[in-house]
Amino acid sequence: MKLKMMYSFLNSDINLIEKKLEETIQPESLLLRQASRHTLQAGGKRIRPVFVLLAGKFGQYDIHRMKNVAVALELIHMASLVHDDVIDDADIRRGQPTVKSKWDNKIAMYTGDYVFALALELMTNIENPLAHKILANTIVEVTVGEIQQIKDKYRFSQNFRDYLRRIRRKTALLIAVSCQLGAIAAHVDESIHKKLFLFGYYVGMSFQITDDILDFTATEKELGKPAGSDLLQGNITAPVLYAMENCEVRKKIEKVNENTMPSEMEDIIQLIKQSGAIEKSISLSDQYLKKALTILAELPENRAKKALRDIAKYIGRRKF
Amino acid sequence: MKLKMMYSFLNSDINLIEKKLEETIQPESLLLRQASRHTLQAGGKRIRPVFVLLAGKFGQYDIHRMKNVAVALELIHMASLVHDDVIDDADIRRGQPTVKSKWDNKIAMYTGDYVFALALELMTNIENPLAHKILANTIVEVTVGEIQQIKDKYRFSQNFRDYLRRIRRKTALLIAVSCQLGAIAAHVDESIHKKLFLFGYYVGMSFQITDDILDFTATEKELGKPAGSDLLQGNITAPVLYAMENCEVRKKIEKVNENTMPSEMEDIIQLIKQSGAIEKSISLSDQYLKKALTILAELPENRAKKALRDIAKYIGRRKF
Repeated sequence: MKLKMMYSFLNSDINLIEKKLEETIQPESLLLRQASRHTLQAGGKRIRPVFVLLAGKFGQYDIHRMKNVAVALELIHMASLVHDDVIDDADIRRGQPTVKSKWDNKIAMYTGDYVFALALELMTNIENPLAHKILANTIVEVTVGEIQQIKDKYRFSQNFRDYLRRIRRKTALLIAVSCQLGAIAAHVDESIHKKLFLFGYYVGMSFQITDDILDFTATEKELGKPAGSDLLQGNITAPVLYAMENCEVRKKIEKVNENTMPSEMEDIIQLIKQSGAIEKSISLSDQYLKKALTILAELPENRAKKALRDIAKYIGRRKF
Repeated sequence: MKLKMMYSFLNSDINLIEKKLEETIQPESLLLRQASRHTLQAGGKRIRPVFVLLAGKFGQYDIHRMKNVAVALELIHMASLVHDDVIDDADIRRGQPTVKSKWDNKIAMYTGDYVFALALELMTNIENPLAHKILANTIVEVTVGEIQQIKDKYRFSQNFRDYLRRIRRKTALLIAVSCQLGAIAAHVDESIHKKLFLFGYYVGMSFQITDDILDFTATEKELGKPAGSDLLQGNITAPVLYAMENCEVRKKIEKVNENTMPSEMEDIIQLIKQSGAIEKSISLSDQYLKKALTILAELPENRAKKALRDIAKYIGRRKF
């Protein structure tokens, strides 16, 4: 089943979100409009808006209130990608040139700032102070994680705790908060929105681990960037950490640095694949997915719950 | 009279703000702590917190509510400086190396993001939705201005409208909002907080024009950076625009570009000083200052009003 089919009952609302995303990014500056819309049009799964809307279905769902949260969360995600590409020196994302490569790092820095500011502006339509507290705390965590990510680059002595903390801040928290804020915007009870937070958190962990696996197992065409890009950029992920448990493999991996050529990665990718690291990473992702489904089972039955279950399974086990 | 003497009745509250600023920036990451505290310790006049507190004196002033706004506004200002230094390739600010020169552009980008996120976190202590709407709109304007600033660099065909719009977004809006949000946090009536906004706006315009004059008239020691730095970085300010009204001077100014050496600036600084541009710029700054004082006169008499008047005159006419 295709991802979009899992929440087809939301189709008209998802289209509204897409329209609102387009409308929101309308600065008078041509440069800013081009740079920020470029990011928008590079696509993505819009998974955060989908989670926001589905979580809202557990309460008093009003699309005109929900859309602010859904669009805000997607914009925050986009803004963080634009800044990430600066740090990663990434020229390609989702098969498209990045803002930093199409323009430059400075434009990318301010484009990210601008898109983020738009998200804040939308969020002011939500008057519940709790929503703002949760979002602000999350953003602090995300920025702390971003700096940590720079420090952890090519640091082969890091352990699984470092990795898990990093993906928590980089991915899982924002997905968790998408679920929680969607619920809060729909006036859902605390006991429910806290469970939705946890569900999103576990799904986010599983999602990122899967992403980190795919960086080795998917093709360049599927990824929209060369395989092994993460490691080449110094990002040490689950498959790398598992592979490094073997001393011989570790020695070879540790040689990767800023000057390693993409062509040199092929042998290392093969080594990692043969080390059993991929299977171990899949098992780790599955553990988080199971936790997500366990929490979800505690929530009231409805159409949104079924969709969340399908999506969780899909993104935790997707092939690309 | 020294600036600090003008609001000596706020001394203990200002000390509290300074302490809260220190406390707020306490990330577990050593790098982030160093980079962000470095910015904090580089000093500054803390003019935004002072305006927040003084505006609060027009209403129900509770320092424990006020301090959140005061610290948040200073942090937003600091975050924007850290990002500005990346754009300006500035190695020195206030006589101290910048984050981007002491570390690098990437660290500076994320340090700015982090400091900004802390500001948002503090602001969530203010539950009035209006405060959040005003702040978010302002931040959007500021980020739009930042991109415009990049586009306007070395663009000698720009006019006064471009310049005024730029300094509005770069400086005046955040000072205006400091006044307005300080008032709103103290539950001041709309008619008053709107006047405080306007007062802050005009003071901010006068302040930035004065800053732009001082870049030519003050000494390197007073500025904490070489004179003429703004123009060298491509920032075209009031004195430059006035000086360019003379065709001969214009021809020489238009030769400034990314490759101009600081030593080549001396002649141009002299030309600008001799062109009458400084006097015209002072007169422009004075016009805004007068508007600020006119608005202020409409507000109820109190100690804070007197302090705002003194500060406005001081920062509009300061010598460095």
